[in-house]
Amino acid sequence: MPNNHAYCIIMAGGIGSRFWPISRAGLPKQFLDFSIQGRSFLRRTYDRMKAVIPEENILVVTLERYREQVVSQLPELPEENLLLEPYNRNTAPCIAFATYAILQRDPAAVTVVTPSDHAIARHEVFNRTLLDAIAYAEGSDALITLGVVPTRPDSNFGYIQMAGHPEPGSPVKVKTFTEKPDAELARVFIETKEFLWNSGIFVWRAEAIRRALEKYAPEITRLWDGWRDVLGSENEKPFLERIYTDMPRISIDYAVMEKTDNAWVYPAEFRWADIGNWESLYEYLAYHDEQGNALNRTSRRLLKDCSDNIVYSTRDDKLLALRGMEDFIVIDTDDVLMICPRDEEKLKDFLSQLAMPEYEEYR
Amino acid sequence: MPNNHAYCIIMAGGIGSRFWPISRAGLPKQFLDFSIQGRSFLRRTYDRMKAVIPEENILVVTLERYREQVVSQLPELPEENLLLEPYNRNTAPCIAFATYAILQRDPAAVTVVTPSDHAIARHEVFNRTLLDAIAYAEGSDALITLGVVPTRPDSNFGYIQMAGHPEPGSPVKVKTFTEKPDAELARVFIETKEFLWNSGIFVWRAEAIRRALEKYAPEITRLWDGWRDVLGSENEKPFLERIYTDMPRISIDYAVMEKTDNAWVYPAEFRWADIGNWESLYEYLAYHDEQGNALNRTSRRLLKDCSDNIVYSTRDDKLLALRGMEDFIVIDTDDVLMICPRDEEKLKDFLSQLAMPEYEEYR
Repeated sequence: MPNNHAYCIIMAGGIGSRFWPISRAGLPKQFLDFSIQGRSFLRRTYDRMKAVIPEENILVVTLERYREQVVSQLPELPEENLLLEPYNRNTAPCIAFATYAILQRDPAAVTVVTPSDHAIARHEVFNRTLLDAIAYAEGSDALITLGVVPTRPDSNFGYIQMAGHPEPGSPVKVKTFTEKPDAELARVFIETKEFLWNSGIFVWRAEAIRRALEKYAPEITRLWDGWRDVLGSENEKPFLERIYTDMPRISIDYAVMEKTDNAWVYPAEFRWADIGNWESLYEYLAYHDEQGNALNRTSRRLLKDCSDNIVYSTRDDKLLALRGMEDFIVIDTDDVLMICPRDEEKLKDFLSQLAMPEYEEYR
Repeated sequence: MPNNHAYCIIMAGGIGSRFWPISRAGLPKQFLDFSIQGRSFLRRTYDRMKAVIPEENILVVTLERYREQVVSQLPELPEENLLLEPYNRNTAPCIAFATYAILQRDPAAVTVVTPSDHAIARHEVFNRTLLDAIAYAEGSDALITLGVVPTRPDSNFGYIQMAGHPEPGSPVKVKTFTEKPDAELARVFIETKEFLWNSGIFVWRAEAIRRALEKYAPEITRLWDGWRDVLGSENEKPFLERIYTDMPRISIDYAVMEKTDNAWVYPAEFRWADIGNWESLYEYLAYHDEQGNALNRTSRRLLKDCSDNIVYSTRDDKLLALRGMEDFIVIDTDDVLMICPRDEEKLKDFLSQLAMPEYEEYR
């Protein structure tokens, strides 16, 4: 039986440029499909959430400039469920906006908040965890995060330390949050077994996070004075435009979760990846050959004397004929061909050069 | 004062596939522009010839399948000056066809025969040589070739040995023809100073080459029995279709020039290149940077830690961002990305793999 008080906020306003030239200013990662299955990260997120949340309760928050992308990828999304921020101000302002919009509809709402650009597998585990978390949140003021049981010491993720031992189906109090530890610290974290990956997925009563925001982030909620009258009215757009000009850029972790003494975490063993850099893309790509090349497709290619490359073309019908390449990243899009050694430092430095104004037209 | 008996045959039926994926079965080299000047080899050839030959006397011979390409690149070409061969049978049959067509118009014609896919510079020298050769041919039965004074021992070209010392403005008798000597022999050729590069450009009276073809290549001219009645009639197309089925594949050098005792050569110092392989393309490309990279353009590129590469994109507006590549060929077209070490053997072998039936759609 669906829980009609269960809502979901899909945050789809990211402007990430880490995967340029695959992602662009006008087409960030959440709208892309890195796999051969033909569904973007956003589309997958929506489909995942609708297995747990009534569709009419799923809201998408994005930037005005991405409106068309969302509408074309989620044609069934009711117009009133699409919230448009004028600017990206990180997750806390985004969550405040969507929380007010939900409270206006249902003061008893329980809300799941999720990024739109992560990869998740083992859906039955994911769904069960989410349902447990919703049930728990409904009867409390707990601010809950989903924590992923880590499989390796990865220094690209945030970590959550549990204050005790988890019981199946119950959350554990959070002891600490740590953003991207160094490799050594990440290894220690894994060894203690007290740490989980921070999935960026939250569950709480809308009223509970509203009060927490008012307490810990008044610089945000102050700007929202009078929201009940404004939201849904003809004044909404100029109001948003005005308050977002002054809105601080701040993440929900920093604004609330690291400050509250009511943060809880549900440890879960679904498979999760925040594909945040090229190495995680290498792992994620659909096809790996015996020479360690990772590609986004299996056909229309001839790789000879090639090993350990990432080869990615946005054109399905393009023939990729490569010989004698080792440890390179080869990205072919309609308007950019990028070839660079698969080396974090070289890539970073090369991409920063390519972000110079003279290449502006390709952003 | 233009010589109204001067004619030109531009041979534009080549089906070369050596520059795949830049050239294609449907778009061979003569229709391409390897430079940034925007004119194809065919267009340049036509423009070069019209400086010397009356435009109404310039004929283009191509294959039926390339008709549209020629018409779009030479819109001013009168329809009756476009001769269409049903199949490619090398240069001797092509020259026979065009010679008959010219003789039907003007029995006193002097004809220049030229390939359509060579690069030529120093036009004033070229034009002067051509005018000298036309004047000489008009008063004789000489079968004349233009020989280019070589600047290096290149084993990709054919060589012509002179039977004596050249006098300015006069041709020299040909002693021998040698196709593509090995590197050692090419060096000896250069040292003797008796050898010239065979430019593939011929000058002769139409009647003289007709008689020479009848004498040395009766297997071709026999098929043309009755040509005076057929050419220009409604029977021309089925006639061509029929005789080309039996037409031998043979070059004019092999069919006539190596057999006649009336072959002459005009030594000339214009700049000439038969861009017949990737190394000659490297030399020919419009832009060379200080690291020895050759590109077909100067803008929309970022090459870092790259040296001695050939980088070629058919898309003007595509950004080429390469790092850490050395001695590679990088060819980007709309439907093929080819990257291969700049090594003749590796390229040849790779291209032969890419010519397999499974890549048929990209030919």
